[in-house]
Amino acid sequence: MALIVHKYGGTSMGSTERIRNVAKRVAKWARAGHQMVVVPSAMSGETNRLLGLAKELSPARSSDALLRELDMLASTGEQVSVGLLAIALQAEGLEAVSYAGWQVPVRTNSAYTKARIESIEDKKVRADLAAGKVVVITGFQGVDEKGNITTLGRGGSDTSAVAVAAAMQAAECLIYTDVDGVYTTDPRVVPEARRLSSVSFEEMLEMASMGSKVLQIRSVEFAGKYRVPLRVLSSFTPWDIPIEEEAHSGTLITFEEDEQMEQAVVSGIAFNRDEAKISVLGVPDKPGIAYTILGAVADANIEVDVIIQNISKDGKTDFSFTVHRNDYARTVDLLKTKVLPSLGTDQIEGDTRICKVSIVGIGMRSHVGIASKMFRALSEEGINIQMISTSEIKTSVVIDEKYMELAVRALHRAFDLDQPES
Amino acid sequence: MALIVHKYGGTSMGSTERIRNVAKRVAKWARAGHQMVVVPSAMSGETNRLLGLAKELSPARSSDALLRELDMLASTGEQVSVGLLAIALQAEGLEAVSYAGWQVPVRTNSAYTKARIESIEDKKVRADLAAGKVVVITGFQGVDEKGNITTLGRGGSDTSAVAVAAAMQAAECLIYTDVDGVYTTDPRVVPEARRLSSVSFEEMLEMASMGSKVLQIRSVEFAGKYRVPLRVLSSFTPWDIPIEEEAHSGTLITFEEDEQMEQAVVSGIAFNRDEAKISVLGVPDKPGIAYTILGAVADANIEVDVIIQNISKDGKTDFSFTVHRNDYARTVDLLKTKVLPSLGTDQIEGDTRICKVSIVGIGMRSHVGIASKMFRALSEEGINIQMISTSEIKTSVVIDEKYMELAVRALHRAFDLDQPES
Repeated sequence: MALIVHKYGGTSMGSTERIRNVAKRVAKWARAGHQMVVVPSAMSGETNRLLGLAKELSPARSSDALLRELDMLASTGEQVSVGLLAIALQAEGLEAVSYAGWQVPVRTNSAYTKARIESIEDKKVRADLAAGKVVVITGFQGVDEKGNITTLGRGGSDTSAVAVAAAMQAAECLIYTDVDGVYTTDPRVVPEARRLSSVSFEEMLEMASMGSKVLQIRSVEFAGKYRVPLRVLSSFTPWDIPIEEEAHSGTLITFEEDEQMEQAVVSGIAFNRDEAKISVLGVPDKPGIAYTILGAVADANIEVDVIIQNISKDGKTDFSFTVHRNDYARTVDLLKTKVLPSLGTDQIEGDTRICKVSIVGIGMRSHVGIASKMFRALSEEGINIQMISTSEIKTSVVIDEKYMELAVRALHRAFDLDQPES
Repeated sequence: MALIVHKYGGTSMGSTERIRNVAKRVAKWARAGHQMVVVPSAMSGETNRLLGLAKELSPARSSDALLRELDMLASTGEQVSVGLLAIALQAEGLEAVSYAGWQVPVRTNSAYTKARIESIEDKKVRADLAAGKVVVITGFQGVDEKGNITTLGRGGSDTSAVAVAAAMQAAECLIYTDVDGVYTTDPRVVPEARRLSSVSFEEMLEMASMGSKVLQIRSVEFAGKYRVPLRVLSSFTPWDIPIEEEAHSGTLITFEEDEQMEQAVVSGIAFNRDEAKISVLGVPDKPGIAYTILGAVADANIEVDVIIQNISKDGKTDFSFTVHRNDYARTVDLLKTKVLPSLGTDQIEGDTRICKVSIVGIGMRSHVGIASKMFRALSEEGINIQMISTSEIKTSVVIDEKYMELAVRALHRAFDLDQPES
C-alpha cells in the first residue's frame, strides 16, 4: 500500500467512454489498497478549441492582461476533466473529490501561459486520502499569490503530476500516455529500437530536450529535483490487466544510479532536424567575441544550442552555433546589420539542412572511448561531421540532414541498442 | 456617470461574433463615462453539453459528492464566457479583467446545484473600476466557506447580476435578454399586448411566478430586497443605437411606488395551465381539517397553490386546492390511501383540464371594485369561475382551460391594457 499519482493525457480523457476506462483503472489501484491522486489533462482538442475562440476575438497576443484571460479560459478544460473523472470514479463505487489548481492550492508565479509551480499545499489532499477518497487534481494550472489563475504551458499537466507527487512524497508517479515507454531511439527510424525498462532522469532530460515527445522536459527536471520516481507507461493496455504487470510496465525514470544502469554505456540515440547552423568566419580572436555575437542573439530572445569556436589562426577565428530553424533568417539578418560591422568581417555562412544526432548515456561518465566509437561508426558510413559538442552524458554531432536516419541506425547498431537489456 | 451592471444571456454569448457585439455595446457604455460590471451567462448550449457528459457517466444524481462535481463541471461554462468577453473588450481597446465567482468572491451556502448567495466582497471590483477597468464576473456560481464551487441553479446568472448590483450599489442593473421587456400579457395570446415601461417588483414577482420566463424569480426577490433598479431589455437591438435610447428601452422594475404606478390599477394578465384541481367533499367542518389534508400533501413534497374551503353545511364542508399537473395522480392516490379514511369520506373529485388566470396590479391595493370588474368581464363571455383566490396585488380565478385565451383577451380589454400608457 502506497501513495500513487496517476497522470492521464488528453487522448485518455477524450470521451466519456475513455474516461470510464480511466476510472476503472484507477479503481483497480485503489482497491489494491493504494492511496490514489489522479491528474488528468483536458479532453483532447478542448484546449485548442478554447484558444481558437480567443484567437477569433483577438488575433494579437501580447499584453499581460490578455495572457491572464487566456489562462482563465484554457484552465476550464482541465476543470471539466476533473469533474467528469470524479463523477466516473463515484459511478465505480469509489469516494472521489476533484480540485482545481486554486483549491489545492497549487501556487505558481504570475507568468501567465508559462507559469512555474512554487509550492503545493498538501493538507486538504492528505485529509481526503486519509478519509479513503480518491483525489482528482487539475493539471496544467495553478494560482498566483493574488488569486489569478495561471497555466503552465503546453504539456504542463506532466509537470503538475510530478509536482503533486513531490509534494505528497508519493511512492511513484505514473504518466499514462499514448506511447508505452521510452525507447532507445525513435522506432519509426529504427524498427529494432527497444523499450528501456529504466532510464536515469539525466538521460531522460537529454532525450526530452532532443524533441522526444514522451514527457514535458520541465516535468523531468522537477522529478530530478525532488527525486520523484516517474514511470511512463501505456494508457492503451486494457484497464483490467493484473496490477503487478501494469506496475512494472513502461519505463521507470530514476534518480538513483544503480548497478544495472552503470552497465549500459549508451542508453539511446536522440536526434532532431529543427536546427540551423550559422558560422561567422575570420573574426578577431580576442576576449569578448562570444559575448559580442551571442549577446546580441540572446537580446533578440533567440535560443542558441550548440556553440563551437575553432582554434585561432593568424589572430583570426571562426565561430559557429546552431539556432532553431524558425529563427535562422532573423539571426542572420541581425548579425549582418548589427554585429558583423563592429567585428570587421562580413563573412557569414549558414546551413538549414543540418541535423543533430546524439548518443545519450549516464554510463559515459566512467567510460573512455565512447565518442571515438561514435565517430568511427559515422565514418564507416561515410558521414561527415560538421560540429561536435560533448557533455558528461551526451555526445552530439551536427551532420547533413540527409544522413540523419542512416546515422541513427548506424549508432543504434554500434552501441548494441538492438540487443536485449542485460 | 454611474456604476452600471449589465447581464447578458446565453444567446447573446452564443458565438464569437455575438460576444464581439456584446463587447461593442459595453464599450459604448464605458466610453459614455459609466463604470461597468458585466455578468455573462455560459454560451448557449454549453451547460447542457457539460451536464450531458456527466449524465453519460452517472445516470443517478443523488449524493452530495456528485452534486459537488456537477457544480465543478457546470461552472466552467461561465468561466469560458468571462474570459472570452474580457478578451473581446480588450480587443475593443478597453482595459478589462474577468473573475470567476470564487475570485470575487461571491460567497454562497453549500447547497450544490441550488446554492444561495450570502455575500459578495466588493473590494477587488471597486479597485478595478477605480483603475478604469471593465470588470467581467461569472454568473450562476459562487464559492462556499470551505472553498467548494457552487452553482445557483438554472437562470442563476440573473440572480448573480442583481446580487453584484446590490453589493456594488449600482445605479441600475440591465438584463439583456431575447425579449424586449415585460408585457401586459403574452403577445402570442393577445396580439395587442403592450410592453410596460415600468412595473413594480411585487407585480413582477407575481408575473414571474406565473411562468413568465423573462426573469428568474429569485433575481426579482433579490432586487426587491436590496432595492436594485432592474431593467429588462432586448439584446437584439443594434449595439450602436444611441445610449440614451437604450437606457430608456425595455421595462424598468422598480421598488418605489411612484405616482405613475398608482394610476395603473391593473398592470398585466398572467396565466398558466400547469395546475390541476382536487376537491375533497363532505369532510367534517372542525379544526385541523386543512392541516390533516395539506399536511400530508406537504410531507410528500407536493407544492399547493390555490386553496379554498367552502362554507360549512350540516357540519360538513368541501375543501379544494390546486397542485402542479405532474403531481396530480400522486396527490389523489395519497389522499385516497392515507387521508380520506381518517376523515370519514371517500368523496374526491379532480380536474386536470383547468387553468389559472390572474390580474396583477399594485394599484389594486387602493382601488375597490377591481375583482368584480374581473368577474363581470368573464361572465359576459360566459366563462364559469371554479375557484377564486385573492391577494393584495393579484386576483386569480381557476376556470376551464378551454376558455383560457378567451379569458385573457377579455380581461386585457376590460382593463384597457391595449391602450397606450398614460
